Amino acid sequence: MTLDEAALGAALTRLPGWRRAGRAIERTYRFGDFRAALAFVNRVGELAERQQHHPDIAIHYSEVTLTLWSHDAGGVTARDVKLAEAIDAYCQPTTS
Amino acid sequence: MTLDEAALGAALTRLPGWRRAGRAIERTYRFGDFRAALAFVNRVGELAERQQHHPDIAIHYSEVTLTLWSHDAGGVTARDVKLAEAIDAYCQPTTS
Repeated sequence: MTLDEAALGAALTRLPGWRRAGRAIERTYRFGDFRAALAFVNRVGELAERQQHHPDIAIHYSEVTLTLWSHDAGGVTARDVKLAEAIDAYCQPTTS
Repeated sequence: MTLDEAALGAALTRLPGWRRAGRAIERTYRFGDFRAALAFVNRVGELAERQQHHPDIAIHYSEVTLTLWSHDAGGVTARDVKLAEAIDAYCQPTTS
């Protein structure tokens, strides 16, 4: 079930850097170089596999944009928020 | 220097699966799952680092789209063709 406006708004206040993007939420992370960006993508990949929920990932040299939504539900669900939280908890130290 | 129409057309005939996309060339690769797609992205990353030329990479679960152009030249150059050839030579066996 997709989150209602209030729940999504509340979730985003706990996820600095994440923003709405259509039916999804997304965040862009900037790194020092391509290698660091790719290392981040691999960490995100581990978390995504663990949760069996996968963000769309766009790599533009040292910049990575993650886009999260639940295709089956047609919008942002608790699974997306859970994965975003896990990514930021795990990856925060090296991201801007 | 960007390739002229004839040179780009000739290059694309040697790069099956690659197509023009605005000022760039791109190709989409499909894999069995996210893990295989991510492994491919890491191989592409190694080649990109070796050539110091980096494609834009978009991962959508088991699908990876690579977009190649030379920002400094404003279009497709011999460097892009060289990287596309290297990627396909290295990665062909596991891609569709």
